[in-house]
Amino acid sequence: MTRHRVTRLRTTLRERRLDALLVSSLPNIRYLTGFTGSNALCVFTATGGFFLTDTRYRDQSRAEVIGVTRTVTTKTLAAAAAERGCLDGCRRVGFESHATTYQQYRALRALFPRHSFRPTADLVEDLALVKDGRELSCIRRAVAITGQVFLDILKVIHPGSRESAVAATISYLQKMYGAERDAFETIVASGPRGALPHAHASEQKMRSGEFVTLDFGCRVGGYASDLTRTVALGRVTRRMRDIYNIVRDAQAAAIAAARPGMWAKDLDAVARRHITVAGYGKFFSHSLGHGLGLHVHERPRVSMLSTERLRSGSVITIEPGIYIPGECGVRIEDDVVLTPTGCEVLTTAPKELLTL
Amino acid sequence: MTRHRVTRLRTTLRERRLDALLVSSLPNIRYLTGFTGSNALCVFTATGGFFLTDTRYRDQSRAEVIGVTRTVTTKTLAAAAAERGCLDGCRRVGFESHATTYQQYRALRALFPRHSFRPTADLVEDLALVKDGRELSCIRRAVAITGQVFLDILKVIHPGSRESAVAATISYLQKMYGAERDAFETIVASGPRGALPHAHASEQKMRSGEFVTLDFGCRVGGYASDLTRTVALGRVTRRMRDIYNIVRDAQAAAIAAARPGMWAKDLDAVARRHITVAGYGKFFSHSLGHGLGLHVHERPRVSMLSTERLRSGSVITIEPGIYIPGECGVRIEDDVVLTPTGCEVLTTAPKELLTL
Repeated sequence: MTRHRVTRLRTTLRERRLDALLVSSLPNIRYLTGFTGSNALCVFTATGGFFLTDTRYRDQSRAEVIGVTRTVTTKTLAAAAAERGCLDGCRRVGFESHATTYQQYRALRALFPRHSFRPTADLVEDLALVKDGRELSCIRRAVAITGQVFLDILKVIHPGSRESAVAATISYLQKMYGAERDAFETIVASGPRGALPHAHASEQKMRSGEFVTLDFGCRVGGYASDLTRTVALGRVTRRMRDIYNIVRDAQAAAIAAARPGMWAKDLDAVARRHITVAGYGKFFSHSLGHGLGLHVHERPRVSMLSTERLRSGSVITIEPGIYIPGECGVRIEDDVVLTPTGCEVLTTAPKELLTL
Repeated sequence: MTRHRVTRLRTTLRERRLDALLVSSLPNIRYLTGFTGSNALCVFTATGGFFLTDTRYRDQSRAEVIGVTRTVTTKTLAAAAAERGCLDGCRRVGFESHATTYQQYRALRALFPRHSFRPTADLVEDLALVKDGRELSCIRRAVAITGQVFLDILKVIHPGSRESAVAATISYLQKMYGAERDAFETIVASGPRGALPHAHASEQKMRSGEFVTLDFGCRVGGYASDLTRTVALGRVTRRMRDIYNIVRDAQAAAIAAARPGMWAKDLDAVARRHITVAGYGKFFSHSLGHGLGLHVHERPRVSMLSTERLRSGSVITIEPGIYIPGECGVRIEDDVVLTPTGCEVLTTAPKELLTL
C-alpha cells in the first residue's frame, strides 16, 4: 500500500527535478510509511527511502514501518540523517515548507551546507487528494462511528445537561465504538454560544428553547470523520426554525450541486447564495467546507478563496451555518466523497430539526 | 495578569534590541493575551500590542482577549497585520523561529520587505519558566484531577480489561471532574507493550501476571498535569518486582536531590546512576523529565543533554523508567515544583507497587 504511494511520490520528484524530498509532516509520514508515533523524519530519493525516529519509538517503528531504511537515534533527526548519509549524491532537496519551522530549516542548512534546499508544499498532500479504497473504508468507518454516537447522545441531551458532560460522553462513546481518538476537540455550544462557530464545550447548562450545536469526529486508521448537527431543546421560536431550514436547504443545494470538475469556490457560492437570498449572508461567516482525510482540514479548500477544482475520489465536508451574535447558531455538516457524476453523502445522521 | 507578562516581554525586547516581536505560538499567545482559540497572531512593540484572528473567533476573542488592539480578518493574519500597520516604525522584528513555518516566514518577508526579521526562540517561554501563583494553582488543580482519576480507574482495571476502554474512561473522568481536556493522548500499555514508552492504548486485553503502565494528564486553565504509574495485575515475577523497586528508588533519589541551582543534567544523572548501578542503565531509554506548564513538554529539559540549571518556581516531571523489550516496562512519574530549598511533589498518587 505505502509502496505504491512512494512510487507515485518519486514520479513527482522527477517532475519537480528534485533529487530528494524531506518529509517532516507526521500525517504525511504515516501516509508514506505507516508510522503512527509523534516524532519522525523521512527522506525519499530516486531509489532510497529513509525513516528516522528517536529511541522511544524503537520497537513501535520496527512493527509499523515498512519499505524504508529505519534509523533510531538519540540525536536530532536531521543530525542523524546527515550522519546516515541520507542525502549522499543528492543536490536539489525539497523540504515541506509548510511543515518545517524556520529553526528546523536553519538546522538543515547547517547540517547540509552543500545541498540546495527547495521549499515545496503539498507534494504528499497532492498524492492524498484522491482517496483509495482502503482510505475510504477508514473514513466510512469513522463516519459510521460518529453517526452512531450522534444517535446515542440525543438520548442524554435535555434541558439542564452540561455542555462539558455531553462532550465528555461523546468522546467516551467514540472510543468505545472503536475509534482511535477524537479527530478534534468536540464542540458543544448551546444557546447564544451557538453563535460562536468554534466554541468548545463549557460548563454552561442547556436550557429549554435553545439550539444546541454538536460538532465532533473521530479517527479510524488515522482518517477523520467530521459531523455537525444543531438540535432544538423544547420549543424554539419561529425565527429559529426559519434559520434552521435555510441552513438545511443551503446544505441540500450544495450536496445536489457537488460534482468533480467544478470549481470548489462555485460550490461554496451555491450555499452562500441560498443563505444570502434568504437575508442571512453576513451571518455565514466561514467557508462551506474542507477536504477530509489524514488531516481534519486538508485540500481541497471549499471556500470563496479556493483556486482549485473538485476531483472524483476526494472527500470534503459541506457545512453551511448561520450565526446570530448573542442569539443562536445553526450548522449542518456532512462528509461526502466526490464520485464521477456527483457526490455520495457518507453521513447518515438525520437532518430534519430534532426537538429533544 | 497578562499585562504584567507583556511588560516583562517588553523588557526582553529592549535587552535584545528588538523593535517588535511577532508571537505565533498559540500557548504563548494564550499566556500573553488569554486567547484560547486555534488561530491567532500577536505583535508586541515597545508600546503597542496587536492581536489578530479570523472571523470564526470574532466574539470569543472579544470576550477573552484583553490589553491589546484586536483585529478580526478574512485575510491571512500576516496580511492583516501588514494592512493594520502593526509594524509601522519598527525595523528589527523578532519572530518565533520554533513556531513559524518556513512558508510563513517567506510570507512575512514578502509582506514586510523593509523590515529586518530576526529569528528568536524561547523569549516568551523564558518568561513562563517560573510559574506565578495563578499558574501554580491551575497546575495543582490539574494534578489533583489526574490523581483522583488514577484512584478511580484502579477500580475498573482487572485481567480482561481492554486498554482502549481504560483510556476512554480516564479521558471521560478527567473531563467530568472539570478538566478542559486531556493534556495529551493517554497511554495504557499492558504486558510487553509496556516496553514501548509511548504506546497508545490498543485493543489488547490485560492479563494476569502483567504490568500495566498508565500515563495521562489533563489541562486546567491551559496548564497541564502529567502522571505515570505502573500497576501489577495479579501475581508478577520476582524480577518484575525488582525492576519496579529500582525505578521507584531511582525516582525517590531524584526527588530528594532536586533543588534550584543544580544543573538539570545532574538531576537526570542521579536517577540514571541508580538504574545503571542496578544493571538496567541501557533500558532507561529516555530523559528523566521535562518542564510542564502551558506546554506538556517545555523547558527546562531534564536530560543528559540539558544545558540549563533548575530554577525555583519551575514545574518539572520526574519520570524514570525501565523497558525490557518483549517483556515489560515500568515508569513512575510525578510533577514537582522547585522550591527555594528543594522541591515539592504535587502528585499524591501512591508509589508502592499496587496489585489489582
